[in-house]
Amino acid sequence: MSKQVAVILSGCGVQDGTEIYEATLTLLRLDQLGIGYRCFAPDIDQHDVVDHRHDEVAEGERRNVLTESARLARGVITPLAELVAEDFDAVILPGGFGAAKNLSNFAEAGADMVVLDALVEALAGFHETRKPIGLMCVAPVLVPRLLGPGIAVTIGNDPGMSGAISAMGGLHRRCAVDDIVVDFENRVVTTPAYMLATRLSEAAAGIFKLVDRIDELMGL
Amino acid sequence: MSKQVAVILSGCGVQDGTEIYEATLTLLRLDQLGIGYRCFAPDIDQHDVVDHRHDEVAEGERRNVLTESARLARGVITPLAELVAEDFDAVILPGGFGAAKNLSNFAEAGADMVVLDALVEALAGFHETRKPIGLMCVAPVLVPRLLGPGIAVTIGNDPGMSGAISAMGGLHRRCAVDDIVVDFENRVVTTPAYMLATRLSEAAAGIFKLVDRIDELMGL
Repeated sequence: MSKQVAVILSGCGVQDGTEIYEATLTLLRLDQLGIGYRCFAPDIDQHDVVDHRHDEVAEGERRNVLTESARLARGVITPLAELVAEDFDAVILPGGFGAAKNLSNFAEAGADMVVLDALVEALAGFHETRKPIGLMCVAPVLVPRLLGPGIAVTIGNDPGMSGAISAMGGLHRRCAVDDIVVDFENRVVTTPAYMLATRLSEAAAGIFKLVDRIDELMGL
Repeated sequence: MSKQVAVILSGCGVQDGTEIYEATLTLLRLDQLGIGYRCFAPDIDQHDVVDHRHDEVAEGERRNVLTESARLARGVITPLAELVAEDFDAVILPGGFGAAKNLSNFAEAGADMVVLDALVEALAGFHETRKPIGLMCVAPVLVPRLLGPGIAVTIGNDPGMSGAISAMGGLHRRCAVDDIVVDFENRVVTTPAYMLATRLSEAAAGIFKLVDRIDELMGL
């Protein structure tokens, strides 16, 4: 029986959902390593719908996070409320503004943010049983509220966002786009991905390294 | 000056647009090879909007192909009408039902299909100047109408679709998911991708091979 990883999505598109390349590269690497995966997303309305062509909010449009996330999962997706940590060996959250708009309200509230209850509950099971947790791009800002204070993460080198992580009780470490930060005690692995990447191959380098480390930690 | 490849998208999601993984893997491989790329899509309404969670048409919803394709290109996209073959060394069309619904009406009309004029015009420039053309998944069915008869392509091993290709004057060759078919005379490279893939790593193998062969052909 192969290892199984839960991947939590937040829509389909960098501006209002999951960053598409980050999710795809995560799933590719899992599959290349022979690790099974299942995608989850919350069954809620998106915070907003962004016209990615004109980089502006599409006023009046409404989309559902689970329904849009299904595009990224070729239709095979499960509501986040049904995610049970016992069924999986690890969990990974790709980035994109969906993490800051749909899984939390970080985009609006900064360090005063609230994280979606269903996500807090789902992640608690992984954290309590010391199963590895991977987060990339902007998603690591959730860690202090999601898993508690004192856990080392990276979002690259953005001063405002690393300041917000500190303000919430987290620890931020600077990190290059092709590298990862590992908090061994808490088994949390993070990488900057499109917080820093200017090329797809740069993002891939860090994401593949993150998935490889998650794989190693699952065996420990 | 690095080589430049045009990538033509048809939406964002396998059921009503471009297959997301195929597009991402194409762009990843191009970038890994140091090849520049630019994404294009037609500025038209989608044929339909499919709820990928429930696998059913979302009645009454309308989306624009160029606007949705912009999600797959992180906002950097150009209307297909502005694609000029002289500016590029090759062109690649990922698959997904968008190729059969938005770039053509193959999904409804089969061998009686019509291909979007803007696509025929854009591709003619590449074909006439013997620049390599790559197509994957369902997109190779367009070749007889897009480039003319007698060009060898693959969509894997589907009898109905290979029959339609024959009926339009094309040549179909069976092909495994991790392999490619190359028509050297016409410089057309095709791979089955998600016509056959059951795993992301299988699709990646064929797509990477296709991009690598396009790269070789650009140098000849």
